Order: sequence, then C-alpha cells, then structure tokens
Amino acid sequence: MTSDTGAPAGYPRNLPRPPAAERVRPLIRDLSTENIAELAVRAREIGDVIPLWYGEGDLVTPAFIRDAAKAAFDAGQTFYVPDMRGAPALTQALAAYQTRLHGRPIARERSTVTPGGMQALALALQLVLDPGRNVVYLEPQWPNIANLIHLSGGEGRAVPLAFRDGDWRLDMDAVIAACDARTTAIVFSTPANPTGWTASREDLAALLAFGRERGIWIVSDEVYNRLYWDGPSAPSILEIAEDEDLVLSINSFSKAWAMTGWRVGWLVHPLSVAPQLAAMTQYMNSGIAATIQAGATVAIEQGEELVATMRERCREGVDLAYAALSQVPDVRLPTKPRGGMYVFFSLASEPDSAIACRRILEEAHVGLAPGWFFGAPARPYLRMCVARDPVQLESALDRMVAALRS
Amino acid sequence: MTSDTGAPAGYPRNLPRPPAAERVRPLIRDLSTENIAELAVRAREIGDVIPLWYGEGDLVTPAFIRDAAKAAFDAGQTFYVPDMRGAPALTQALAAYQTRLHGRPIARERSTVTPGGMQALALALQLVLDPGRNVVYLEPQWPNIANLIHLSGGEGRAVPLAFRDGDWRLDMDAVIAACDARTTAIVFSTPANPTGWTASREDLAALLAFGRERGIWIVSDEVYNRLYWDGPSAPSILEIAEDEDLVLSINSFSKAWAMTGWRVGWLVHPLSVAPQLAAMTQYMNSGIAATIQAGATVAIEQGEELVATMRERCREGVDLAYAALSQVPDVRLPTKPRGGMYVFFSLASEPDSAIACRRILEEAHVGLAPGWFFGAPARPYLRMCVARDPVQLESALDRMVAALRS
Repeated sequence: MTSDTGAPAGYPRNLPRPPAAERVRPLIRDLSTENIAELAVRAREIGDVIPLWYGEGDLVTPAFIRDAAKAAFDAGQTFYVPDMRGAPALTQALAAYQTRLHGRPIARERSTVTPGGMQALALALQLVLDPGRNVVYLEPQWPNIANLIHLSGGEGRAVPLAFRDGDWRLDMDAVIAACDARTTAIVFSTPANPTGWTASREDLAALLAFGRERGIWIVSDEVYNRLYWDGPSAPSILEIAEDEDLVLSINSFSKAWAMTGWRVGWLVHPLSVAPQLAAMTQYMNSGIAATIQAGATVAIEQGEELVATMRERCREGVDLAYAALSQVPDVRLPTKPRGGMYVFFSLASEPDSAIACRRILEEAHVGLAPGWFFGAPARPYLRMCVARDPVQLESALDRMVAALRS
Repeated sequence: MTSDTGAPAGYPRNLPRPPAAERVRPLIRDLSTENIAELAVRAREIGDVIPLWYGEGDLVTPAFIRDAAKAAFDAGQTFYVPDMRGAPALTQALAAYQTRLHGRPIARERSTVTPGGMQALALALQLVLDPGRNVVYLEPQWPNIANLIHLSGGEGRAVPLAFRDGDWRLDMDAVIAACDARTTAIVFSTPANPTGWTASREDLAALLAFGRERGIWIVSDEVYNRLYWDGPSAPSILEIAEDEDLVLSINSFSKAWAMTGWRVGWLVHPLSVAPQLAAMTQYMNSGIAATIQAGATVAIEQGEELVATMRERCREGVDLAYAALSQVPDVRLPTKPRGGMYVFFSLASEPDSAIACRRILEEAHVGLAPGWFFGAPARPYLRMCVARDPVQLESALDRMVAALRS
C-alpha cells in the first residue's frame, strides 16, 4: 500500500528520500519471521495459557553444566578462543562422543562448533550452495530450512513425505524426481520437526547412494537424534557415511541437553573442508564464547543421564498425549512417533490449522503451533511440544479433551 | 598441486570419489584464514615471546560483568530469548547509551544484537549486497572485511587511504572514482584497524552525502569508537545520519569493554529494516544467550569506568611505543594516532613486513602482525597491539629497541 506521494503509507511525507527498506536486497525484502507472535499477544490477554507451541523443553539447564560455565568465568576465560572452530576440549569431546554413538571413527577436525544449530545449517548451505541452484527438502519441515534456502539465494524444492497407513514415509521416487542438474543438496530433519518422522537406516542409505551417484550433498539435521526411544540415537547419516562423502550433519545442544538458550551447536563435515569451515567461521562469527563451550563440554562428557531424562520426558509426553487425544473422535493421530519432542495431529472438523489453533487457544487455553508454518502438507495439522512437566502436560491435555469434545 | 591421478597431492589414491573439498562452492574453495599461525608455532618454540599481534587487550572482563552473567545462570536463564534481535533490557540500554553518546535519538528498534561484531558485519552485507555487485572499502583494513565481501559474493574494491605528511587521510576523490552503478556499499573502520586513522566529522559528512546522492550504503565499523582520546567517542556516522539514511554501524563489546571472548556485538540500522533483520537473525543465529546478554547489559549500563581504563591503557600504550620507537633511526612512525589500540609502523631498511615480523620475533621475542594482512598499502608495516599492561609493553619495547638498533 502506498500513499499518493508514492511513499509507503505511514511514512512521513516530508522525508526527501525513500525509506531504507526499499534499498535492501530484493531477496530479503519479503523475508519474514515465522512465529506465533499474534497468537502470543492473545495468549497474554487470556492469561493462563499453557504454551506448547515452541520447540523447547521446560527444564532449566542442570547445575553441573551451568557451574562449568560459571567456573570458566571465574577462571577469567573471557578472551578469544584461538581455535575458532571450537575449543580443543569440546571438539575432542565431540569426537569421542560421536565415535562412540555412531560406531565409526569421526575425527575431531570434522566437527565445527557454531553459535547454535541454526548457524550450523547456515554455514552448511554457505559452504555448498551457489545462488540460483536448488535445494530439495522434505516437508512437513520446520520453516527455518525453507527460509534459509531462500536467504542463501537458492531455490527451495519441497518434497512431501508420503502419508500412508497413518504414517509419514520417505517417498524416494519423489525426491529423485525433484532433483535435477542444478540440485546442490537434499535437506531433512530426522527425527523430523514437526512430524517425528525418523529416517530408517535404509532411507538414509538410499539418500546417500543417490547423493553419491549425482554429486548431491546430503544435509541431515539431527538435532533430535538423542530424543529417540528405540536406541541410543536415531539412525544417523554419520553411521553410514564415509569421511569424504558429501554429507553434512547438523546438531545442537539445545534439545537433548536442555540448552536452547545457550546458542551452541555443531556441524559435522568432511575432513577436507575443514579449512573452508575455518575461514567461514572466522568471517561469520569468529568463534564461540569459551564459557559457553565449557558448559557444552561437560554436557557432552557428563550429560548422558540428562539426555536419558529428556528422552523419557518426550516419550512419556507422547504417550500422555496419545492416551488423551485418542479419546476425542475429532482428533486424527498419525502412528505414534518414535522420537522427537512433538505430537503432530489434525482435527477432522477443521482443515485450517490457523482456525484450529485459535480455537484451542480460546477454548482450552493451550498454545499450539499451526501446521501451515511447516508447509502445504502440514496445513491441517497442529504441533504440540511434549518435552514438558507431565503434570502440566496432563493439565493441558485435559483442557484440550474437554474443549474438543464439546 | 595435483598428483598424477588428478587427486590433490597427499589424498589417498584408493578413494573412489574425489574429496568433498572439490564439491564446495568455487567462491569458497580458496578462501583462507588470515592469521599468524606460522609465526605462532615459531613463538612457541622460542618460549618467552610477548604477543602483541592480536587485536585483544590483556584485561580479564571485570567481575561486575562476569557476575551478571553468572547471576543469569543462577536465575535459570537458559531458555530462548523471545526477542531474537536482543533482550529488551539490552536493546533499551543500547538505545539510551547511543542516544547519550551521539547526541541524537537512536530508537531501541534500530539496534540488533549479534554473536560478535563480525556477525554484525556479515548481516550488514547480507542485508544489502547482491552477489556480483561491488563494495568499496578503505585500505589498510583488517582482512576480515575483504574476505567477508568475497564470501558474500561481492567484488571488493580497495581504495587506499592517502599517506601524506606522515598521516593517513581519506581520499574522497579516490572513493568516488572507485564507485560505479554496481556499487552497493562503502565500508571502513573508524578508528581504523590497523592504522588508527579516524574519520573526521567532515569525512563522514562527505561519505554520507555521496552515499545519499548515489544510493550507496555507508557501513561504518565503529568497534574502536570509545578508544579515542579527543572526546567520549570518535566521530560516528550515527551523529549525522538520519533514521532512514542508508547507514549501518557495526559495534562490539569486545574492545572497549574487554569482552573479546564473549562474542557479542550489535548493528545499528534504519528502523525500516528491523523486520528484515529480525528474519535474518532468526535464520542465521536465532539470537544470543540470555546470560551473555545479561553481562553485556551491565557493561553498557555500568561500564564507563572500564571504558575509561581501556582508553587510558591504549593512549598510554601508544605514548610508550612512540617514545621508545622514535629512538630507533630505522623505525618510521606515522603521526601518533588519536584512537584505536594499535601502533602501525615500518622499518626503513625492510619493506617486506613478513621478513620484518620474523626478524623482530627472532631477535626481540616480540610478536607483531605483518602489514600484508591489511592490503597492499600496508605491506611494509607492522601492527603492534598496545592495549596491554604497560610494564609488559615497556619490556617488549625495550627488546625491540635493542634489536632494531643493533
């Protein structure tokens, strides 16, 4: 909308120049945040809303991790960390951890620590994606991936997971059909946010084989890989990839170690691109605070009990949600997920998730994330984070059941 | 260098696929880190080297700032900060601080907090620079700027500062001549790293007027603006820019608040691009740790004494260096800088800074940064960081004077 002076409505008429927003990159101009801002405003008005819309648990990071960061502050660790790709203690801990977890040696130099898993993804695309090329990604998918592809100058090509027999499944034929000579990478999350779909070892092998054949990078977001109930980790691309395969694995301390607010993650990459990651790290962020890395190091080294607690919390949360919501005829539940921190369901009576979310907010005072954030196939769905205190979760589910039955 | 199999030398011959490094973006392949790694290896062999090569002071961040971060850990602030562009307490403190310092209202929404000043620069270029366009920058300049322009897909065009009457000066005609229809931005640091050149109010006005006329963004790296001896701040582009001018100012807690290892900085931008910065923040880093922001907030609110200490340390360091080095006939000293944390000098007898640095390392056991990092006009120069304990600095200077006189 523009005023009769040609300036955007609401912009002062006496300003001689157009606003700066008209001089930013065309690519950036329409980029928007995906969030529940409008719903959150309404939630504050309502007052007693139980917020299950964010991808975040409710546990404060345990004291042993916070204490390590505090001790680093006390020790005066307030200087640059010379190895910008990660303090030696942390990258060594990551190497030992990943080697143990995935049953395959993963050298220290293959992990680059980043200010959050999000930046690990951004560096992954910056490493491989030339503007104008395309990236295939599986949908439903957390919206940051599509937005990052766009921000990186790439064309995002969404390939829906197939929904068959109540279950989300990889449609490898659709992935292959979406790729062409300009495809740089295939990106997915496993266990997936929001569906909980988890790539099987066979799915990963098929993706890797196809990537090898075509020279396409496989970018696997494995931020939820420890929140999985059928083993110590969900199947990981790192279990089957050779050191120099075109594979990038994204991870983060946020979910499994209750460290969302620490902003620290890591990227696993081929050894041969370590110099490029060193340079990109220098010119993008110049490293991570030593104090934050001190916390991350003890999280990796001493955090297995915490990870088990987080995993049980999610598993129990899924069970509680399925037990409660299966009582409601209007609720459509996919097969129960085996990992992740979400329940992703729809209402038979309401195909528009924006309306359904609003209704549940108003009637049950529970905050859910609308499926349209996650792409076209997710439009009818609602995402509920279950990594919460079971008592609070039961209370939210009681309210939802009461509201949805009425 | 390639072996006879076509694989890079040293790469195992039995690997069936080419290494991943051959499949990264061409733009990235030759990107390298600029550092003193080789010199640092030699320094460790020597053993008693005084390291003045990094742009970092030697003061641990004061306790009142560390205590604020520790208190935030104790208070359980380990969750996402809802406003990813900065916690309200910090952006409010930045608004009050900048409004006071620059004598012009700078709204809270115009500052975006970033994981370090480096990322503030990266976001600035990501906001405005389309691949294939060019960016003019003043030289000598810290190497991250030219490397970031390249990494961002732009063509960097170095414009030398003029060296006249022993002084570095802006050559506005050269800046104008370097710009064309594809120029997106003019980037500089003031006080400059490494020269200490400080843009006058008139320099900034000329740059801003030219930017307005041509629709070119002015990107002013003001990370050293408090380390200036002729007033509370070096002249800042924020003193003269209107809210919607095409102006981006980079800043950081690293230098003036002794917080290099905290990795927190900020970007001041036109109000109208706040939504773009919000989106870019979400997709590039998803915000800064609450604990780190708690430290940054008290640094801004209660850090003026610290800033004064840092400034005096730099000023005294410059004086000590000039007093000592002016005794050495071989040393060429420009006019004494009025800001920054560096002394930037050359040797009449040695135009190659790599050789001069190595000689000073071997003979004086003092580590300096070679000028070739900073562009062609800086090739003969040596950069010495003087933001150090004066006793240590005097010791380094004594050694240098002895070595350079012999």
